[in-house]
Amino acid sequence: MKDGHDIAGLMAGIGARARAAAAELAFAPAAAKRAALEAAARAIEARAAEIAAANERDMDFGRDKGLSPAMLDRLMLDPARIAGIAQGLRTVAAQDDPVGAVIAEWDMPSGLHIRRVRTPLGVVGVIFESRPNVTADAGALCLKAGNAAILRGGSESFHSSRAIHDCLAEGLRAADLPEDAIQLVPTRDRAAVAEMLKMTGMIDVIVPRGGKGLVGLVQREARVPVFAHLEGIVHVYVDAAADPKKAFEVVLNAKTRRTGICGAAECLLIDRPLAVGLGADLIAALVEAGVRVHADETLAALPGTLRATEADWGREYLDMDIAARIVDGVDGAIDHIRRYGSQHTDAILTEDDAAAERFFTRLDSAILMRNASTQFADGGEFGMGAEIGIATGKMHARGPVGAEQLTSFKYLVTGDGAVRN
Amino acid sequence: MKDGHDIAGLMAGIGARARAAAAELAFAPAAAKRAALEAAARAIEARAAEIAAANERDMDFGRDKGLSPAMLDRLMLDPARIAGIAQGLRTVAAQDDPVGAVIAEWDMPSGLHIRRVRTPLGVVGVIFESRPNVTADAGALCLKAGNAAILRGGSESFHSSRAIHDCLAEGLRAADLPEDAIQLVPTRDRAAVAEMLKMTGMIDVIVPRGGKGLVGLVQREARVPVFAHLEGIVHVYVDAAADPKKAFEVVLNAKTRRTGICGAAECLLIDRPLAVGLGADLIAALVEAGVRVHADETLAALPGTLRATEADWGREYLDMDIAARIVDGVDGAIDHIRRYGSQHTDAILTEDDAAAERFFTRLDSAILMRNASTQFADGGEFGMGAEIGIATGKMHARGPVGAEQLTSFKYLVTGDGAVRN
Repeated sequence: MKDGHDIAGLMAGIGARARAAAAELAFAPAAAKRAALEAAARAIEARAAEIAAANERDMDFGRDKGLSPAMLDRLMLDPARIAGIAQGLRTVAAQDDPVGAVIAEWDMPSGLHIRRVRTPLGVVGVIFESRPNVTADAGALCLKAGNAAILRGGSESFHSSRAIHDCLAEGLRAADLPEDAIQLVPTRDRAAVAEMLKMTGMIDVIVPRGGKGLVGLVQREARVPVFAHLEGIVHVYVDAAADPKKAFEVVLNAKTRRTGICGAAECLLIDRPLAVGLGADLIAALVEAGVRVHADETLAALPGTLRATEADWGREYLDMDIAARIVDGVDGAIDHIRRYGSQHTDAILTEDDAAAERFFTRLDSAILMRNASTQFADGGEFGMGAEIGIATGKMHARGPVGAEQLTSFKYLVTGDGAVRN
Repeated sequence: MKDGHDIAGLMAGIGARARAAAAELAFAPAAAKRAALEAAARAIEARAAEIAAANERDMDFGRDKGLSPAMLDRLMLDPARIAGIAQGLRTVAAQDDPVGAVIAEWDMPSGLHIRRVRTPLGVVGVIFESRPNVTADAGALCLKAGNAAILRGGSESFHSSRAIHDCLAEGLRAADLPEDAIQLVPTRDRAAVAEMLKMTGMIDVIVPRGGKGLVGLVQREARVPVFAHLEGIVHVYVDAAADPKKAFEVVLNAKTRRTGICGAAECLLIDRPLAVGLGADLIAALVEAGVRVHADETLAALPGTLRATEADWGREYLDMDIAARIVDGVDGAIDHIRRYGSQHTDAILTEDDAAAERFFTRLDSAILMRNASTQFADGGEFGMGAEIGIATGKMHARGPVGAEQLTSFKYLVTGDGAVRN
């Protein structure tokens, strides 16, 4: 798209079409939404070669641009990943439709019967970076919740996202739903992102999924409500009362199972009494597993560790790195997490109920865990089927954002001629 | 406060103290919060004369300023109203504490047990206009939900709000809770409002309660998330299948019981077949009751009506006025409400289930009613005990905003050494 000068006009058109589609989607039958997603899944499979070819163009562009191997891996679609996209669409299709569900109902002495019923939010803007599968996941979840979606993918995945979006559009047509229900912003121009952030009246909420650059832009520029999605500065605190066997399994899993996801552990906090026992053994195990351990003054005496600097606290490595620090009990861990955490996911390993309770009560991360790997911070593992991301803010959605979190509600009140005295 | 030039510094100090208080309040025992509210209620009663004297100063100021009788009435505190403020505090005190309540819990095949638990939002800013009792209601609801409150009352109620706030502070001290849990902005300078709207990082959400000027300012300036609170452009649609007896009772109650509240009916929509029957009779009854009926072309032929102009559609009179219009069936009513409504409260009067269902499904007001007076649009009438206002936005809170709507949630996940495959 060369006419960068008319991004505002382009986006206003997209916004108006999304608004019109949202008005129809709000009462679209559950069966039609399901059929659209199933048809889209079939289209993904039927057009797998086309998607792979589009992805090859993106990969060439990425290699020319000098993207890191980790970035190229996030961008890459192979047959298994393409099949996974279709499967993800079917999973969302099979979920219960949230719209119209009665969340609560009760009677009042006045004779009123009150129901609190789920409704769509309206128009959802999703701004994401390189992973092309988000096009399908985000579009599907928005549609399931009866929202129109405006998707703005990263410039690296431009062609892949477009090929996937074509399949979503095919699904919508097959189910007789407005094609504008899921729109993909057809330009790489970054000005489109800035524009989206200001489209109050057109966009009801924006879900930003990306790194620090995007988060900063959103914080500075957004006039539209946002589901805050900060980095996952995930801490694992090993309490003096931790069970050693569980600690080994959980710490290694939390760090090494997959390092590029937001639930991967980034900082290990070790209770002081464990410094020469379990704590040292855990660090040895991490080093052995190939993890670069950025250790505080005390722990840096252990073989194979690197000396941490201040910049290592509160850092999201998304790689085979972990920061490690001695703290004084659960309160020391709480202080560290309050200072350096991102309210995403934090865990305590302990057999001491009082310590766990203190950790659960005094911290306010979206997800707090006890004796479980932080890699479980995921909508699927929470039973939500799929997610757009993990919200770290406290407004509206928090934790994994699935279809239900993309809804609002209204009150339906019935009487029999009731009047107020 | 004369040093208007340092409003930013003043507000930053208030924000920092609120943030510190919120950190303590987040795990304050339910009993302490209850005790603080009960002690505040006793203080209101003990200091009733002081509050009345402060209110007299505000009333003098208001009369000098030439406030309308309706405005002066909203400002005025008499012994009954002061007793009502104390009673309101006791009602909130007696409610269940929302913080820590388990909203949902479930087990996953991975062995994880997941709980979704209510937490405070953090720091809540409340910007309100002349009614001094809001000081107590808003402060109490924020405290109940474990939030620190920054209250900014209207300049007309400056002294009354301060006297009421003194009682809240006394309650907090009596219960050993941080006095900064409920702060009142100590200046009439409007710059403080603009400042609050930008205090991201300090204030988590703003609840604006006021007229068009405030709503416009908030829409232009707010960087902090806001619970939108538009006017109550409340419609009552009388369907051809309405029961005449219910229609008379509900329409008169919806308009005339109290005209100054946001749930008061402002526009009567009459199904075309009723134009010469029930509809005309309803308008005659309204005219008889002293209501100025601003009628469309057809209805303006009825005796005692005024001819409506375009400005009468979508107008919030908050007085003994109502707009009236003929529409073509439920779809005509839906079209009118979509165009002119404020997504606050709208009602249908009908015995036809299909018409009611269409009204409930195709409109998306925060509150939709069938065969009931819109004057029931109130937190107390919904069983919530008290409310700060009726939110018309779709993010987070919607409808009556009570203590529960002033909370967020977090996930508490427990395993027994669970790791992800």
